Amino acid sequence: MRQAGRYLPEYRAMRQRYGFLELAKTPEAAAEVTLQPVERLGVDGAILFADILLIVEPLGVGLEFAKGEGPVIHRPVRDAGDAERLAPIDVDSSLGYVFETVKLVVRALDDRVPLIGFAGAPFTVASYVVEGGPSRDFKTTKRQMYEEPAAWSRLMSVLADATVRYLTGQIEAGASIVQLFDSWVGALAPEDYRAFVLPYSRRVIDALPHSAPVIHFGTGTAGLLRAMREAGGDVIGLDWRIDLDDGWRAVGDGIAVQGNLDPAVLLAKPSVIRDRAADVLRRAGGRPGHIFNLGHGVYQETPVEHAKALVDIVHELTDRR
Amino acid sequence: MRQAGRYLPEYRAMRQRYGFLELAKTPEAAAEVTLQPVERLGVDGAILFADILLIVEPLGVGLEFAKGEGPVIHRPVRDAGDAERLAPIDVDSSLGYVFETVKLVVRALDDRVPLIGFAGAPFTVASYVVEGGPSRDFKTTKRQMYEEPAAWSRLMSVLADATVRYLTGQIEAGASIVQLFDSWVGALAPEDYRAFVLPYSRRVIDALPHSAPVIHFGTGTAGLLRAMREAGGDVIGLDWRIDLDDGWRAVGDGIAVQGNLDPAVLLAKPSVIRDRAADVLRRAGGRPGHIFNLGHGVYQETPVEHAKALVDIVHELTDRR
Repeated sequence: MRQAGRYLPEYRAMRQRYGFLELAKTPEAAAEVTLQPVERLGVDGAILFADILLIVEPLGVGLEFAKGEGPVIHRPVRDAGDAERLAPIDVDSSLGYVFETVKLVVRALDDRVPLIGFAGAPFTVASYVVEGGPSRDFKTTKRQMYEEPAAWSRLMSVLADATVRYLTGQIEAGASIVQLFDSWVGALAPEDYRAFVLPYSRRVIDALPHSAPVIHFGTGTAGLLRAMREAGGDVIGLDWRIDLDDGWRAVGDGIAVQGNLDPAVLLAKPSVIRDRAADVLRRAGGRPGHIFNLGHGVYQETPVEHAKALVDIVHELTDRR
Repeated sequence: MRQAGRYLPEYRAMRQRYGFLELAKTPEAAAEVTLQPVERLGVDGAILFADILLIVEPLGVGLEFAKGEGPVIHRPVRDAGDAERLAPIDVDSSLGYVFETVKLVVRALDDRVPLIGFAGAPFTVASYVVEGGPSRDFKTTKRQMYEEPAAWSRLMSVLADATVRYLTGQIEAGASIVQLFDSWVGALAPEDYRAFVLPYSRRVIDALPHSAPVIHFGTGTAGLLRAMREAGGDVIGLDWRIDLDDGWRAVGDGIAVQGNLDPAVLLAKPSVIRDRAADVLRRAGGRPGHIFNLGHGVYQETPVEHAKALVDIVHELTDRR
């Protein structure tokens, strides 16, 4: 889960040399950053260094990663006219650099651990395109669902189709698994999720090659888990806001789950980390199909030795030293 | 739910004359603002105009409502020393103006509708005191729970004891019901809630006079509902992130629920409002013990006629015209 990141000194060193987008677009550098947590922490999988908004750049909506402010979209999509004017996304020409990164990483990993590719899910990506950047309450996005259904369905369709090609390209380039990040979907009422989001997430997941398992993840989804399973995925990712056993019960049998330690636990001392990791594993009950992970990304303030301690603790507690 | 607010022109007119804290501290004005939505919308209950942070002012941590920025706490509590230095809260002398407001409102309502009093729950109030203001991820608060348990328990104890007296005073002054707002508790893992929050919320609820029912509310609580019921309350408030029937099932039998329309629905046209209100009522199934409400406060951009339409629609659909 967002392993490569600002908490690693070797990542910050790379960022001295590259702007964020530039780093993502330079396959050798992006591959190096992807491998950093594998080398440093000893995790059991690598996760591609990229950003869920890279796919937005070819849409022509004016994506910019403003310093210290996060992403800004200068020409947000607010009505059907805006949506009609969206440029078609030629994934292979505009995002080919990501596929290059995947190839470099897979070669460097040499089967030591699998590489997890990823994309943002249509809703989460669309929310940035509609709001013009990050949002707390997604009011403009929700209003568009209710009041501008033509704009919403056009935007979601464009994103869904591009995401199919984007993830397929990552799998063809060698990613063993792909994760669909619907990070902010937990802001929605289940009724809105089913009406305005689920069909597009399902369209993406259904169209992917069966050779790579799909992890379907969101945060704040305790009330959405059944609906997310309906949308698809071989693994449902859980954040920490639900006990893992309750979450697995809500998702149902016959499917794997990933999660779900609160990343804030990594700010505490290793004895606390051990207790809380053990609690997650106890709730998983040793059943096959549990992928231990944080419930969301590593916070920037996390001491690297705490992240390393977590990996060691999980390996020890699951006899995978 | 936060009926009095920035979406009402008559409220904005009052705010031309009074600063926010000044308005809360002027019983005649606060009573007038409390009554505005009752007159304008025809709701079935009045909710006290106040703020969950008023109780923080006597703590001596430097509370300020900065223009356009929300609350700021200039001397946040970060360690046991900070917590020891907290001033004791003499609720009756420092918050007596709230009790005056309650009396004025109750007299003006003259039994037309009940008055709902409220307070912030210890966790939600403490989170502001620790973070120094609003937070997105509550990292500093969580870190304090894990790493500074003495500071955390002292702060939570001080707030819990003051909250008992504060809500008891509102009930003695004539409030028919009280609501405990644990607005941000949904940021927590259930394990953290049970260890660091539940005992203090329970302490508050257990100590209140039995003459007034208690509504226990938070947002993002789909994974916490069972634990919140253990903490107490006659009614559990649900936000919109879970289907009402699923939420009621999680809360369990023999208890009432309040909720749970997404306030963003009020940004849509009345036909959408009708469909979504009907869905909430359908999921409540006409069972006794459902209080129809929004899942959180009314957004500032809400057209007043949409809020009024919702009240009329719910009255019509429940035969309470």
